[in-house]
Amino acid sequence: MDQRTLHDRLKPEAEKIDAAMHSDIRIIGDDMLRKVLEHSLFNGGKRVRPLLCVFAAKLCGATDHALYKLAIAFEYLHVATLLHDDVIDSAVKRRSQQTANTLWGSTPAILAGDWLHARSMFLIGNLGGQQCLEIIYRATIAMVEGEFLQLRNTGNSALSAEEYFRIIAGKTAILIAAVCEIGAVYGNATSRQQQALRSYGTNLGQAFQVVDDLLDYLGNPSQTGKAVGNDFIEAKMTLPLIHALGQAAPRERELVRSLLTGPESGRLEHFATVRQLIGKYDGFGYARQQARLLVNSAITGLDIFATEATADIRSLLIGIADYVLTREK
Amino acid sequence: MDQRTLHDRLKPEAEKIDAAMHSDIRIIGDDMLRKVLEHSLFNGGKRVRPLLCVFAAKLCGATDHALYKLAIAFEYLHVATLLHDDVIDSAVKRRSQQTANTLWGSTPAILAGDWLHARSMFLIGNLGGQQCLEIIYRATIAMVEGEFLQLRNTGNSALSAEEYFRIIAGKTAILIAAVCEIGAVYGNATSRQQQALRSYGTNLGQAFQVVDDLLDYLGNPSQTGKAVGNDFIEAKMTLPLIHALGQAAPRERELVRSLLTGPESGRLEHFATVRQLIGKYDGFGYARQQARLLVNSAITGLDIFATEATADIRSLLIGIADYVLTREK
Repeated sequence: MDQRTLHDRLKPEAEKIDAAMHSDIRIIGDDMLRKVLEHSLFNGGKRVRPLLCVFAAKLCGATDHALYKLAIAFEYLHVATLLHDDVIDSAVKRRSQQTANTLWGSTPAILAGDWLHARSMFLIGNLGGQQCLEIIYRATIAMVEGEFLQLRNTGNSALSAEEYFRIIAGKTAILIAAVCEIGAVYGNATSRQQQALRSYGTNLGQAFQVVDDLLDYLGNPSQTGKAVGNDFIEAKMTLPLIHALGQAAPRERELVRSLLTGPESGRLEHFATVRQLIGKYDGFGYARQQARLLVNSAITGLDIFATEATADIRSLLIGIADYVLTREK
Repeated sequence: MDQRTLHDRLKPEAEKIDAAMHSDIRIIGDDMLRKVLEHSLFNGGKRVRPLLCVFAAKLCGATDHALYKLAIAFEYLHVATLLHDDVIDSAVKRRSQQTANTLWGSTPAILAGDWLHARSMFLIGNLGGQQCLEIIYRATIAMVEGEFLQLRNTGNSALSAEEYFRIIAGKTAILIAAVCEIGAVYGNATSRQQQALRSYGTNLGQAFQVVDDLLDYLGNPSQTGKAVGNDFIEAKMTLPLIHALGQAAPRERELVRSLLTGPESGRLEHFATVRQLIGKYDGFGYARQQARLLVNSAITGLDIFATEATADIRSLLIGIADYVLTREK
């Protein structure tokens, strides 16, 4: 499915998600809070997380409308994180718009994130029950531990690909898996269906992160809106570099190691050299191939849903997985 | 009950709470995360929130040990907020110790707060069930709306005492009320008992905030660890000033109004004058009297528990309420 077709077919569902959010935030009494939330929620997000939840639930047979209300919980959770991150990083712009902290100040931005977080947990507990709360709890704990694992391995030139995948499973993939699994639980999935959708989410989430890490080296800043090289400059070990270091000559490895353990200025200065080195040992090709394998696993894992009734939904989940590989921002 | 006696009688319960936290964080695999949490959790906190939960539950008849595990959820929630606040404010010290963000950096401090928050919600949902999650959700939403109400009234010299109490109910008291109410629910309270403990928490929380606002004008920085005058300098309207403005001569009112709507430097410069003005119209005495009335309401609300079996627990809740009035930090 090409990107245009995918976009057109996702659009009616994305609109239902937006409508559910518009309706949900009408409960807010405070004008300023509502404005901060409207600004932060409706600024061109692709609604990937709620869409995954909706499709997972529908694949298992859910048909009711409250599903959209459950699904928005995952957009809330996502936007709450963005709001807080932007305060912590004192970010001025996001998606080429001014951030909430720029427009209203840090306190309203933090509070709006707190509101979204609380509302999100309430919706998940209320519509998905105890089991879904436990899934999201375990994903949050795994995310924190994944981030710590990454922190502890900052500048560690000996980090293996296996450990890298363990880090990105925790910090990114388990949350995507949780969104899919919660959709499945809401749709009264069999345990086999639930497991299949969780695996789909794990593979998709890992592929997403591998591509994200690739774009950090190769992305076009005018498309991604981000400068390249952040990961290397922060001494964060990602797959292209890990693969290249495994192939590189001792002298090259030693150069990278000294850059990773030295001051940031050295990494800034030698970023182009390191990118060239990764290219020489096909680190980018390797990472892209790993992402493709993960996407293939995500897609074949959906085979158990290969009935005529679900063909349409399944093709959308396949389309989203394929999109992860081709995205350029 | 004098402070020494209260402290001695609370000690065994506070120790059980500490033991429950020590045991709970043993589930953490990551050494660095565990260290950040140990530093943040065990640094001389008074454990007021978990103690309130324990006593509320016991007053209704709870006797089991899992109660302490529920109670620590409220210390986690509190410390999560402190961790995040310290990052946002780039605070270097708290309780005369270095903050987590100073020792480990912003990211670990934020992540440790996220862990505490997730674990807290899990414990409340797991041990208290859906009803308790809903109570804490409503308290969080009210807290956010209370903070926004306060923000919108920054520099508003016409703010009434009634609106002030509405603000502090939202931003402080409803959360304390939720802690007490959840303890009651856990202890299988009757609806009358549940209501009584919620009221106790609301009154206690409001009294606590009124005293906090008083200490912001009159506290001894060597005891509170905070400079005086922050609220006025930030143009935050609190009860002593609101009361004084209601009594002041037109010329005095106009002076304060112009300071509140003018630049911060003016408020910094004239803080001593304003404090004197508040003293002249007995704003501090009035606020202290209001705090006393709230504490009295908190205490008399516990009358329905006046049986011999619960006399001991009840006297501790009375002791905590009295302490709020006499605390100097």
